[in-house]
Amino acid sequence: MIETPYLLFLGDAPDALAAKVAQGIRDWRPQNAVGQFRMEGCRADMRLPDMTLEEARAAGAKTLVIGVANRGGVISAAWKKVLVQALEEGFDLASGLHNLLRDEPDLVAVAKATGRQLHDVRVPSVQYPIANGVKRSGKRCLAVGTDCSVGKMYTALCMDREMKARGLKSSFRATGQTGILITGDGVPLDAVIADFMAGSIEWLTPDNDADHWDMIEGQGSLFHVSYSGVTLALIHGGQPDALVVCHEPTREHMRGLPGYKLPSLEQVRDMALELAKVANPACQVIGYAINTQHMSEDAAQAYLADVEARLGLPATDPYRYGADKLVDALAAI
Amino acid sequence: MIETPYLLFLGDAPDALAAKVAQGIRDWRPQNAVGQFRMEGCRADMRLPDMTLEEARAAGAKTLVIGVANRGGVISAAWKKVLVQALEEGFDLASGLHNLLRDEPDLVAVAKATGRQLHDVRVPSVQYPIANGVKRSGKRCLAVGTDCSVGKMYTALCMDREMKARGLKSSFRATGQTGILITGDGVPLDAVIADFMAGSIEWLTPDNDADHWDMIEGQGSLFHVSYSGVTLALIHGGQPDALVVCHEPTREHMRGLPGYKLPSLEQVRDMALELAKVANPACQVIGYAINTQHMSEDAAQAYLADVEARLGLPATDPYRYGADKLVDALAAI
Repeated sequence: MIETPYLLFLGDAPDALAAKVAQGIRDWRPQNAVGQFRMEGCRADMRLPDMTLEEARAAGAKTLVIGVANRGGVISAAWKKVLVQALEEGFDLASGLHNLLRDEPDLVAVAKATGRQLHDVRVPSVQYPIANGVKRSGKRCLAVGTDCSVGKMYTALCMDREMKARGLKSSFRATGQTGILITGDGVPLDAVIADFMAGSIEWLTPDNDADHWDMIEGQGSLFHVSYSGVTLALIHGGQPDALVVCHEPTREHMRGLPGYKLPSLEQVRDMALELAKVANPACQVIGYAINTQHMSEDAAQAYLADVEARLGLPATDPYRYGADKLVDALAAI
Repeated sequence: MIETPYLLFLGDAPDALAAKVAQGIRDWRPQNAVGQFRMEGCRADMRLPDMTLEEARAAGAKTLVIGVANRGGVISAAWKKVLVQALEEGFDLASGLHNLLRDEPDLVAVAKATGRQLHDVRVPSVQYPIANGVKRSGKRCLAVGTDCSVGKMYTALCMDREMKARGLKSSFRATGQTGILITGDGVPLDAVIADFMAGSIEWLTPDNDADHWDMIEGQGSLFHVSYSGVTLALIHGGQPDALVVCHEPTREHMRGLPGYKLPSLEQVRDMALELAKVANPACQVIGYAINTQHMSEDAAQAYLADVEARLGLPATDPYRYGADKLVDALAAI
C-alpha cells in the first residue's frame, strides 16, 4: 500500500505522453495529488500547483510518485538528485519504471538511513496464495477485451466513478502498474509467478458487502497468444458476476502480433462467458465498451448503435459518453 | 541442461512413493541412470545397481539427482553429508525439491570451490522471451486434461516412446519438475513469470524438421480455476497441431477444489480446440487418453469403448495398453 496523497514527479518529460502515469492519477484520483514537481525543460503539465519538495510536504504529500517514463531505461543523475532529496525530506518513492528503484544502491542506502519506503510497483511485494475457488461474498465486474490496450482499465475506472457518483459501493481493483499508481495498491499481475496468478486476484477481490462491486481492471485477451494465460487467471480468480467486453474498432491486428486478426465481439463474449461460468455459473455479459478515440462522432455513434442492435446489449464509449448504460446494466443483475 | 547419465539418490526414502522422481527416470529414461545410491533405512528400490559415489563416477555418472522427496521440507544432515561429498567427487547436483539447493550455504560454497553446478529445476534458469506467435516448422502434440494430475505427462511420454519405437522423430518436452528431471531439461512452467509463460513454451518447442513431433507435457486444466492460466499459455505458446484429451474417470471433484465437478470430455475437447485454433487454425483433437489405474480390466475396456463410440475418436490408456492408437492418429494428420 502506497501512502497518499502524492506529489507527482514529472521530471524533464519531453511531452504530455511521457507523463501518462501522472495523467492517469490526475484524471482518476485528483484528490491523491497535492501538486506536481517539474524540472527544467519539462513539457508536461497536469494543471496542478507547482511545488518544491518542502511545499509539498507542508501540503501533506507522503509519497513522490514518478509519473513519467524515463529515457533509455536509466534514472538520470538529474532525477537522482531530486529523488535522494525527496527521501531526505521524508517522502516515500513510488515507481512503475522498468528499472527498479531498489536496484539503485544510492536510493536504497538513503531510504534505509531515513526509514523511507521504495515502492517498485512492477514487482509483487506480497506472497500470494494458490487460488482456492471458494465463492466470495459481494459482486465483481471484470473488463475483458478483444485485444491488449483497448480500454479495459479506463472502462473499469469509468464504471467505478459512475457507481460512486450514484452513491453505490464500488472499488476499482488495479491489476497493472499504471492502475496501481493511480489507486495506491493492486496486483502487478503480469509479474506474478504462474502458479499464483489466480490466487493473487482472489486476494485482490476478497469477501465484501453483498451490494459492493469490485471493478476489476482486465489484462490481455483470451485471443492474444502472448498474454492469454494472464487473462484466464483473471477470469477464474476474479469469479466475475458481470463481464464487460472491450474493443477498439480501428485496430488492424492484435497488438504486437501482425499475423493475428482481432476476434469478433461475439467470439470474446461466448468464450469469456463459458470460461467465467466455471468459477461463477451466474456470470453474465452485461454490455460492450467501445474505445472510439480514433473515430468521428458520427462513426462512433453509428458503430455503437450497430453493436447494440446486433448483440442486444448496451454499448457505449464510457470515457467519451459516460458509463451510465453499463452501470444501469449492472444494477439490473 | 542437466548432464547425464545420473546416479539416482534415494536417500532414506520411507517407501516407493517417496521416490516418485527416481521411478519416473527409471521408467522413462533408464539409459540415463547408471545406478542408485541408498542410505541406511531406504525402502525404495529402482532395481538398479547400488553404487558408491566413487563407483558411479567410474561408471560415467555426471549428476547426482535427488530422486526422493524430503521430509518436512528440510535437507537433513545425513543427506547433506552425501551431497557435499558428491560435489567433491565431481558430481553436479539436480533437485526438484521445494527448498532449493542454492539456499543451502554449505552446498553453494562447496559447489563454487569444486566448480560444480547446482540445478534447482523448480526455478527457471532462462530469461524467456514474450511469445511472438510466429508459426514454427515441425509438428507439436499437446496433452490437455479435464483436471490436474490425470496422466498428461505419462501420455506424452508414452506417445514419445511409441514414436521412437517406430523410428519416427519425436521429442518429449517437459513442462514440470518431474519431467525436467526425467529428461534433463524443460521449462518449470508453474514457476515462470506470467508475462513470459507462452514465450517459454515457444522457446521449448522451436523450429524443427517438418516431420518432427514435439510431445508437450500438459499442465493443469482450462477448467481448473487455480491453474487454468498456465494451461492456456501452453495451448497458445505450444501452437499444437494435435491435442490429446486426458481424463481420470474415478475423480469425484477437481483436484484441491471440493466444490468443482470435472468437465466432460466434450467440454474440454471443444474449449481447448477453439482456443488452440487461435494460434494454429489447423489444430485437431486426435484422441483420448484415459487413466484407468483405479479401474478393473472390464471396467477400463468398457469405458474406453464407450468413449470411442460416443466421441468418434481413438481412446486408450496409453500406459496400460500402449499408445499405438494415438500415434496412428497422429500419423494420419
